[in-house]
Amino acid sequence: ALPPACTRRLLPLSLGLFQGALLLFFALFVTYNKPSARAEDASLLANELHGIFPLFQDIQVMLVVGLGLLLTFLPRYGLSAVTHNFLLLNFSMQWALVLQGLLHHLQHGQVHLDLHNLLTAEFAAVTVLISVGAVLGRTSPCQLLIVAACEVPIYLASEWAIITRLGVLDVGGTITIHVFSCYFGLGVSKALFGAARQAVHPKETPTPRSDLQSLVGTLILWVFWPSFVAVLCQPGDAQHRAILNTFLAMSASAVTTMVVSSLLERDGKLSPGHVQNGSLAGGVAIGAVADMAMLPVAALALGSLSAVACILGFRFLTPLLARKLALQDQCGIHNLHGLPGILGAVASAVAILVASEDTFRSHLPQVSPVGGNASEAAGGQWGGSGAGRQALCQVAGLAVAIGGSLLAGLLAGTALRLPCLARPPERLCFDDSQYFKIEDQAESPGLGSTAEEGALALKE
Amino acid sequence: ALPPACTRRLLPLSLGLFQGALLLFFALFVTYNKPSARAEDASLLANELHGIFPLFQDIQVMLVVGLGLLLTFLPRYGLSAVTHNFLLLNFSMQWALVLQGLLHHLQHGQVHLDLHNLLTAEFAAVTVLISVGAVLGRTSPCQLLIVAACEVPIYLASEWAIITRLGVLDVGGTITIHVFSCYFGLGVSKALFGAARQAVHPKETPTPRSDLQSLVGTLILWVFWPSFVAVLCQPGDAQHRAILNTFLAMSASAVTTMVVSSLLERDGKLSPGHVQNGSLAGGVAIGAVADMAMLPVAALALGSLSAVACILGFRFLTPLLARKLALQDQCGIHNLHGLPGILGAVASAVAILVASEDTFRSHLPQVSPVGGNASEAAGGQWGGSGAGRQALCQVAGLAVAIGGSLLAGLLAGTALRLPCLARPPERLCFDDSQYFKIEDQAESPGLGSTAEEGALALKE
Amino acid sequence: ALPPACTRRLLPLSLGLFQGALLLFFALFVTYNKPSARAEDASLLANELHGIFPLFQDIQVMLVVGLGLLLTFLPRYGLSAVTHNFLLLNFSMQWALVLQGLLHHLQHGQVHLDLHNLLTAEFAAVTVLISVGAVLGRTSPCQLLIVAACEVPIYLASEWAIITRLGVLDVGGTITIHVFSCYFGLGVSKALFGAARQAVHPKETPTPRSDLQSLVGTLILWVFWPSFVAVLCQPGDAQHRAILNTFLAMSASAVTTMVVSSLLERDGKLSPGHVQNGSLAGGVAIGAVADMAMLPVAALALGSLSAVACILGFRFLTPLLARKLALQDQCGIHNLHGLPGILGAVASAVAILVASEDTFRSHLPQVSPVGGNASEAAGGQWGGSGAGRQALCQVAGLAVAIGGSLLAGLLAGTALRLPCLARPPERLCFDDSQYFKIEDQAESPGLGSTAEEGALALKE
Repeated sequence: ALPPACTRRLLPLSLGLFQGALLLFFALFVTYNKPSARAEDASLLANELHGIFPLFQDIQVMLVVGLGLLLTFLPRYGLSAVTHNFLLLNFSMQWALVLQGLLHHLQHGQVHLDLHNLLTAEFAAVTVLISVGAVLGRTSPCQLLIVAACEVPIYLASEWAIITRLGVLDVGGTITIHVFSCYFGLGVSKALFGAARQAVHPKETPTPRSDLQSLVGTLILWVFWPSFVAVLCQPGDAQHRAILNTFLAMSASAVTTMVVSSLLERDGKLSPGHVQNGSLAGGVAIGAVADMAMLPVAALALGSLSAVACILGFRFLTPLLARKLALQDQCGIHNLHGLPGILGAVASAVAILVASEDTFRSHLPQVSPVGGNASEAAGGQWGGSGAGRQALCQVAGLAVAIGGSLLAGLLAGTALRLPCLARPPERLCFDDSQYFKIEDQAESPGLGSTAEEGALALKE
Repeated sequence: ALPPACTRRLLPLSLGLFQGALLLFFALFVTYNKPSARAEDASLLANELHGIFPLFQDIQVMLVVGLGLLLTFLPRYGLSAVTHNFLLLNFSMQWALVLQGLLHHLQHGQVHLDLHNLLTAEFAAVTVLISVGAVLGRTSPCQLLIVAACEVPIYLASEWAIITRLGVLDVGGTITIHVFSCYFGLGVSKALFGAARQAVHPKETPTPRSDLQSLVGTLILWVFWPSFVAVLCQPGDAQHRAILNTFLAMSASAVTTMVVSSLLERDGKLSPGHVQNGSLAGGVAIGAVADMAMLPVAALALGSLSAVACILGFRFLTPLLARKLALQDQCGIHNLHGLPGILGAVASAVAILVASEDTFRSHLPQVSPVGGNASEAAGGQWGGSGAGRQALCQVAGLAVAIGGSLLAGLLAGTALRLPCLARPPERLCFDDSQYFKIEDQAESPGLGSTAEEGALALKE
Repeated sequence: ALPPACTRRLLPLSLGLFQGALLLFFALFVTYNKPSARAEDASLLANELHGIFPLFQDIQVMLVVGLGLLLTFLPRYGLSAVTHNFLLLNFSMQWALVLQGLLHHLQHGQVHLDLHNLLTAEFAAVTVLISVGAVLGRTSPCQLLIVAACEVPIYLASEWAIITRLGVLDVGGTITIHVFSCYFGLGVSKALFGAARQAVHPKETPTPRSDLQSLVGTLILWVFWPSFVAVLCQPGDAQHRAILNTFLAMSASAVTTMVVSSLLERDGKLSPGHVQNGSLAGGVAIGAVADMAMLPVAALALGSLSAVACILGFRFLTPLLARKLALQDQCGIHNLHGLPGILGAVASAVAILVASEDTFRSHLPQVSPVGGNASEAAGGQWGGSGAGRQALCQVAGLAVAIGGSLLAGLLAGTALRLPCLARPPERLCFDDSQYFKIEDQAESPGLGSTAEEGALALKE
């Protein structure tokens, strides 16, 4: 049942090779900015750092601790879920740094590393962490690394097309990150598992304890989500608005989740999975509109709507897709990232149309897309019918994100079926002992412990 | 035993109705500030945001993650405790936004939402989260929402009376938040459970694991408490002092807790409940004096004293109140919020009296109460005997907080006895399965797992 | 088997006595700065506070929550590990404040407390938290307090010798904190346990759940480590570089850990202990060079190397030391703090030598050691061969840290063998019930619960 010796060495050897290449690339091309001699520059840099660094740390906590814990709802797979999430984050971030650096190097020469580079590389890594949620527990770390290796360059290309070429406004990554990674992940899942529908695995069912652990992950994500959305906004007014809008959307999501989940169950109980996911739906949807000139009520409404979409998705769409398309979506990423992401993209088009031409134009200087250079790229397009054109762009960006990622995901998923990447046998899925050396404790309660302690151990 | 069908729908329907009303209110009355055209204003706003936003996030972590985990000491009630805490926070915060907005609207027209509004709404929500600790595990979510619906307006009225009318100085909410919510919660508990003393429930006893989880919650609250106390201080000197005082008080509390808890037990062991609560007592007490001109030793002494009061309360007062008054206080909020809060209020009166007239007057500009406008309101009162009068005000504020909240709590608790709000039957208290759909796993270890895995599952 | 009555009172009484002395010292000598009357000063202080306070909170989370959780890998010792860590942090911090204050008082009179004092006191406390990792689970809290009481003054002396006298550059405490505390802890362990090799205790083996909990602690430390290294850097360029370097080193550590751990096991599995420790090795090593003028690739390489050293240490050196020297190192502090610390110190010497004289001199103003006054102390030494001399200083600092701490640790460990400090009997090691009043629950599943619930309890 275990994969052969060479397969077992594949992961460390390829990862090691990559670390070597990373070192080489950094040695050749990457440096820091020369410190400026002028005192004003130093104080400006210090101020900027004070503004961005706490948000950067918030995002790190979200990705490393919050997302890691969210994935521990599988009761016997916690160590693997958290560790793979951590490894993928680091690998994808490094890989994105290399790719971004290469592109920059080809155009401008030496790469000057700063916190902003790390942040955009981290955003690229987020897409990987979301996508692999679709295949959590049934894939080997080697397969996950292949997904990361494929997804990062495709994300960078898609982000360039959507933000830089199309001039889409998407400060919180609703389209470029959430929608993209969702359909990439679904593509991978479809290509990997094919037409065979997976039976429910006995280790797949959460326990109250694993559900609670996962819920703590949700809460960490929920708390820090405003930092994620606002980190790349213009400091000042736009950032303030992005924080408030995200907070309102997430608060509405949290309450609406309780309403809808409770209404859907026959006896009014809540489903832990709904709470874990629905509470975050508002954060996914708000990203595209967070810094726009819109009323607070719009953020609340969008948060509520996306929670409804998310929970209805879990209740009706996921079973339907599993039945009709044999689509495997372990974490329900389509419900948390796909549906709310589409809602958010549509909302951004509507928000642009609804905003009076006047308001829209007066806000243009505050609106700063992720790429930072879309305002120039799009600058020429805005005129009399600027809002209409921009709204169209948002929808076009959504279409590009869905189409491109689905296609690329299907291709990447096919690569995962290579025989050398042997998928874990069904019997050993969702089990930490497959990837971790877990010390046998069969005899431990017997040794030097009283009968009462043995009983305690049994009961605990 | 289960409540009838209509009761099961009561919670989602009323919550849903509230969400609708919230949307309507926001649509009609709430907007954002117009962005300023001047560059200096933008940079000022950015700076202000950099100052307050990290503290805001710290407070969010405290309330959502820290307080949630602290409540998981009931081993079978973790999911419910964390989820209800999360729901109540969001509902109360939204409800406070509506009420604050209405008041503002009646006086000044359109409401301009900013981070400061969210912060004061969050403070209103904190009172609800504290109060329901008295009845944790024996109340339905519907009942908890009624508590929140009643408590928020009463808190706003009490805060107005204490801070704005009486001019009480209470930057960290010792009187307005902790004392108020404690006696409100005890009033609710008394009115709800009446004269019948509750027997110890078999699911009420913490396990080492649930105690550890709860302790992690305590530590999160302990770490971020200085942010809670300092967030509304004047930036600069007063805020610096508030941070240092809170830190000193909490550090003294932590050490003193170990001393007192260990001395109280016959064999020198610690009680987990004492550590979970006593370590935080200093933070409760310091709130009223944190930004005043006093020596660091006063913060240390106050922290130590309040930890002593808290643990003695757990050891002697709680059993006494349960015996004599049949008072049910599940989380011991009287020991963590009541006693240290009273100590802190008295300390603030003493600190004002002790501070030489000179020091006191020279510090006045730095002292900024929660309401923000008490300095004006109180401005006219200070003269020759200003300190004496202010000290009296502190004590009067304490009396108002205790009396008002106890009365209001008793009334609110009576409302909870409405037959339609059926309290969970004793047999199903402290159990997640009452509120969560928990999937049956009776057969899971048998399926596709080896005997060794079954043994592991048993032992774990 | 239990210690006699007087021993059980020793801990609370001596701790209580210490709290009294602390109050007295603060009453006599410690005050706050007078608030400045000028508005510019207030705004400057506010800005400074906004810069440092979020980092301070990050460090608090690391020490209280992150380090606490990291120590919970012992499945039955979680409450004790977290609580002792919390107590030691507070006690050591207070003790360091007293000692620092006394020294300052003797030289300059009144002590003016500020956040910077707390920070340096906290750094002193970190050394204690690291050292006691060597003897975790086999020592009583009384013994741990003795370790803290001895280690803090020796740390302050060693830090003065290394930073102020020798002028060593060590902004992140690689030499002064990590190397020092590691060898101090090993000295204590050697002197305490003598030549008797400890048999493997049945409660010493982690479970998947305790390993996961510990891993969450690692991740919290991993995320916030850049704050720890950068908090005392010069704001602006040096701080920015320190953050980036630390991030790169930790990211390289994380990936390299997976490579090496997986290569070392016969079947390619990961060891949880390797992941928990190796991922942090880069942060330990980078401290001495984080703010120096070096290329990003150096940070990556140092991170990778130190992860390799850490894991090889766990795999080969720890068993060897246990066999040959009967050295007990429960948490493997030699692998996480000793080996990477030495690597980092050597790297700092190399970095100084490699940096061209030109670069080195141009960076001098940005380089600010922990003590804050080393630049003056060392100022006179730098000239033509300045770099060579400075590199020598780094190595000399390393030698002082190792030699001094080992000697002092051996002496402190001897003190722990005093009969009145009775070490817990082997049978009761690694068990929370030794230090915590844990309520008996033997009969709980039977009471008022259905058979299905009993089965659930057994299985969980």
